[in-house]
Amino acid sequence: MDIVLFTDFGSSDTYVGQVKSVLHRLAPQAAVIDLTNDLPPFNVRAAAHLLDALKNAFSEGSVFLCVVDPGVGTDRGTVVLKADSRCYVGPDNGLLSVVAARATAARLSSIAWRPAGLSGSFHGRDLFAPIAARIAAGTLALHQLRPLPALATSFGADDLEEIIYVDHYGNACTGIRSAHAGADRLFMAKGRRIAGARVFGEVPQGTPLWYGNSHGLVEIAVNCGSAAHALGLRVGDPVNWVG
Amino acid sequence: MDIVLFTDFGSSDTYVGQVKSVLHRLAPQAAVIDLTNDLPPFNVRAAAHLLDALKNAFSEGSVFLCVVDPGVGTDRGTVVLKADSRCYVGPDNGLLSVVAARATAARLSSIAWRPAGLSGSFHGRDLFAPIAARIAAGTLALHQLRPLPALATSFGADDLEEIIYVDHYGNACTGIRSAHAGADRLFMAKGRRIAGARVFGEVPQGTPLWYGNSHGLVEIAVNCGSAAHALGLRVGDPVNWVG
Amino acid sequence: MDIVLFTDFGSSDTYVGQVKSVLHRLAPQAAVIDLTNDLPPFNVRAAAHLLDALKNAFSEGSVFLCVVDPGVGTDRGTVVLKADSRCYVGPDNGLLSVVAARATAARLSSIAWRPAGLSGSFHGRDLFAPIAARIAAGTLALHQLRPLPALATSFGADDLEEIIYVDHYGNACTGIRSAHAGADRLFMAKGRRIAGARVFGEVPQGTPLWYGNSHGLVEIAVNCGSAAHALGLRVGDPVNWVG
Repeated sequence: MDIVLFTDFGSSDTYVGQVKSVLHRLAPQAAVIDLTNDLPPFNVRAAAHLLDALKNAFSEGSVFLCVVDPGVGTDRGTVVLKADSRCYVGPDNGLLSVVAARATAARLSSIAWRPAGLSGSFHGRDLFAPIAARIAAGTLALHQLRPLPALATSFGADDLEEIIYVDHYGNACTGIRSAHAGADRLFMAKGRRIAGARVFGEVPQGTPLWYGNSHGLVEIAVNCGSAAHALGLRVGDPVNWVG
Repeated sequence: MDIVLFTDFGSSDTYVGQVKSVLHRLAPQAAVIDLTNDLPPFNVRAAAHLLDALKNAFSEGSVFLCVVDPGVGTDRGTVVLKADSRCYVGPDNGLLSVVAARATAARLSSIAWRPAGLSGSFHGRDLFAPIAARIAAGTLALHQLRPLPALATSFGADDLEEIIYVDHYGNACTGIRSAHAGADRLFMAKGRRIAGARVFGEVPQGTPLWYGNSHGLVEIAVNCGSAAHALGLRVGDPVNWVG
Repeated sequence: MDIVLFTDFGSSDTYVGQVKSVLHRLAPQAAVIDLTNDLPPFNVRAAAHLLDALKNAFSEGSVFLCVVDPGVGTDRGTVVLKADSRCYVGPDNGLLSVVAARATAARLSSIAWRPAGLSGSFHGRDLFAPIAARIAAGTLALHQLRPLPALATSFGADDLEEIIYVDHYGNACTGIRSAHAGADRLFMAKGRRIAGARVFGEVPQGTPLWYGNSHGLVEIAVNCGSAAHALGLRVGDPVNWVG
């Protein structure tokens, strides 16, 4: 089974390689795919919404190793979530809560296991990676875990009316689902009204637009330009429908 | 067969991971190698020249998944290029045209297939990746495709007298091939004459030089420094021989 | 056997992909893991200390391909180091010297082999990668190499009282081992006394601390913030114990 990395470890530092060493040792047959390792650091809520939007791009049966964990080393728990046909491992700090809240069928488990050499600052490598690897390899079955009645922190199932991610093009993704929004609706960000389009090429170069992005969220873009730069958009900025 | 990624998707965003999920699902035996996912966004012409210079570093039989696609979602076509012993999949916007123009033997094909759930903004994942994966896996043969008489856009076979790429060291790569240029020639960039060297260590630290880089192009560098910073070089800046 | 990349090639450029093409061709069974490809460019000494701290996160038998090589193309030699249960390939410029000096058992070899098409600027791809791949694949045995009595450059076994790495969170890692340092000791950086903590969560958000990081080095951090930004820390800055 595939293991999908969804972390804020940074793709240019040494953390991801150390995690992959553990995964490869404990689940040598698993393919490891980096969904992203450059989530905005410490922003658990934004990451929780993004994870829910992106999960369906990965195969059923995938095990997601999810780490945005400003509380590393404190006593927040470890959670394993089986939601519909995918599995998620991470800290019990809300990161998995949007997936859980929106799932048709979700089963939560806690896990009390701690490795012998648990560092104070890198539970991704020492704790979450071994669990994810063992689930992917089939050497740890979910029924062996203790059922968890509820998450310690939950952000719920509602849309998040904020910018949750800005990509390297400068496109600004919101936590608002676009599924049933017609392109004639108007969107508001930074005091500016923004019209919808189906594809970038429908508007002149340099013009802002909103569109339903490839993972189903409302995203603000500028054709052949950077919406983040043009409109001054940053993660956490409020956005909403105005028409 | 290997699949080689050559895109502007950004190595720190979520796009590459979504593409790899598709590739792994449809071509589980293929090795996927990131040539780069950080091409300068929207700059199709520079990328077209860089691709031609880098292709020979990869095994014969490799399938290149090539995406720099500012026109995503518009009606530009999809092209499959067999050039000498390698295969390329991408948009028909000129990106594959330098490889095609310089190949000894090139066969162009168009492909009319569209997936059921084609997004408006991520044809790399939805359209080009499945095609590349099926070619690599042998489940799509080139003779099944419709021959294409010519590319819609072509940048030709000539050298490009511009900076086409600046790497993280600050080395500035041009679109000019160095194959037959003696190191005694003089090169001009930003109004400055630059002497040639065979290796960085031939000039004092901090001194600019040009040299034939490891993929056969003229590159401007500073020994143990950044040519981009020292000379103010950026992608698109004109350069040329002056002696 | 695994091949572990430890280079300053840049994860966003084309160099790593070219290296992986060589590795995959010559050692198709080996797993290739990026420890990091974003080491501070040209800083051999800092990288040498970081390598020693990180090596144990990888499996015994791993082959490390190590390249920080400002002297590329000059006549510095190529070294193969067997140190305890791992193997290292790189330039003889000090990069492997801290691992060698701290090893219980170390065997140094030089290698005179040069490939037919050796570029002047990319020995990582042309020279070091083929050697590492052949060792990992078992087609090159260490006893076939010439023993090397000593490294040309060595940084020794002592701690390095400097910042050697700043990660994307802004945590500043030093070259000082934390193994036997109690958290009651005081640390000095940029004229500021910094108290120790076991985990980030022990201090208020925004407060600097030092802690023994997950690879055994003293690291300066700010809980939920950037120590590099708050304290102005950069690679090379001196640090030391003051209590």
